[in-house]
Amino acid sequence: MHEPLHPAARRAAQRDFQRICGVNAVRALFLRRPEAVLALNYVEARRPVAGPLCRYLARHRRPYDEVTPERLARLAGTEHHGGIMALAAPRWAEELGAPPPPSLFAGRLLPVLDGIGNPHNLGAIARTACFFGARALLLSGDERQADLSEAAFRTAEGALEHLSVFRAPDLPGTLRRLSGQFTTVAAVAKGGVPPAQVPRGKPIALVLGNEETGPAPEVLAACQGTVTLEGSPLVESLNVAAATAVLLHALR
Amino acid sequence: MHEPLHPAARRAAQRDFQRICGVNAVRALFLRRPEAVLALNYVEARRPVAGPLCRYLARHRRPYDEVTPERLARLAGTEHHGGIMALAAPRWAEELGAPPPPSLFAGRLLPVLDGIGNPHNLGAIARTACFFGARALLLSGDERQADLSEAAFRTAEGALEHLSVFRAPDLPGTLRRLSGQFTTVAAVAKGGVPPAQVPRGKPIALVLGNEETGPAPEVLAACQGTVTLEGSPLVESLNVAAATAVLLHALR
Repeated sequence: MHEPLHPAARRAAQRDFQRICGVNAVRALFLRRPEAVLALNYVEARRPVAGPLCRYLARHRRPYDEVTPERLARLAGTEHHGGIMALAAPRWAEELGAPPPPSLFAGRLLPVLDGIGNPHNLGAIARTACFFGARALLLSGDERQADLSEAAFRTAEGALEHLSVFRAPDLPGTLRRLSGQFTTVAAVAKGGVPPAQVPRGKPIALVLGNEETGPAPEVLAACQGTVTLEGSPLVESLNVAAATAVLLHALR
Repeated sequence: MHEPLHPAARRAAQRDFQRICGVNAVRALFLRRPEAVLALNYVEARRPVAGPLCRYLARHRRPYDEVTPERLARLAGTEHHGGIMALAAPRWAEELGAPPPPSLFAGRLLPVLDGIGNPHNLGAIARTACFFGARALLLSGDERQADLSEAAFRTAEGALEHLSVFRAPDLPGTLRRLSGQFTTVAAVAKGGVPPAQVPRGKPIALVLGNEETGPAPEVLAACQGTVTLEGSPLVESLNVAAATAVLLHALR
């Protein structure tokens, strides 16, 4: 049901800014990437949040403005602006170099997304992953894979600012190279071991596949194991963001 | 960020049908409430799914029609129709009687929603709850609490057809009356015990509060305990649907 890149997302991707909406996302942006902030808009009710941010922008001669909720919705392109929106220099996943940078190894859990096309799922996974101690995300080269986007930042509620986000064009090769430092395990709907049986000696790289089709066969083949959550046959499966939340909690 | 009842939802609530979209939701509807189906529309690619459903409708002299994706989007009021949509007699949460019906006690887990306003969260919780073995949901009388709706059915992917859904206008009183049969525990952001410390002798009624404000004080006071998921201070909290998924898995 989700196209790999919605036309609106494609247009947004070609702009030279991203609109970061919501109190938590904007606060985390100012905390972690203040130099990226180009401008700020907020509604009257958000003055307490916006005050210190406006002082920062004034010092750096960047614009800010209090606006009506209607105008903010027009500027943000969504009703779900949470009363505050920053324009920021765009950020995308960085291509993973060789050797991988230390930030890839900063957490005990590394979610690896293979073709997750819905940016809300990417944002939800980022929020949960950060909550359970991950410090990086790794995205596959699957063309359906969502990149960082306005919807992903909004749903992540600031978590994406605390995570390094990398893209591995050759994910199977990358997983094989990482298998010394990580236990590489893919979540599958059937046939994997329960989370309790995944070895705990090393950090865990948890591969999560496309919403409809799961991880690609060549990605599965590059993993050391698979993990499955057992559930009622009445529903076909868990949503990928829900499954990720359960697995990250069970595996940490 | 989510109003208790969006104007569009309010209008839909006054209609005498609900639009049930998506393969899993429509299949579950025909399985569990075939008599409620008023009509069916689908796109060419969904013929294999629609075939047996159309034969059922033909026998019962109810209309069905193959349409273009554009027409289905107009009829469904959303692009997220999954290629198939049934019109069904509306279903809402039933008011919980006294004594409560046996179906309230059919699972080992009973999610209790106190003011969860976003119908997508209601649907996501239903899907996860059904997957982890719940057979009923209990909704509070909080005016922000979402009821069954088109968005909830779509997100639940059929799970709502397998769950009894009740509304308790006086949730604190209901929780006190249920405390002989259930361990009643509320999820809170801070100060509760870890899931492993929740007693397992009885089925667990897990109270999940409003997205912004959590459970109401009088609801908390009526519970036998509280439970908290510990996480990084970098993110304020988990999304309520993610927290529910983790807690239901940890408590089952």
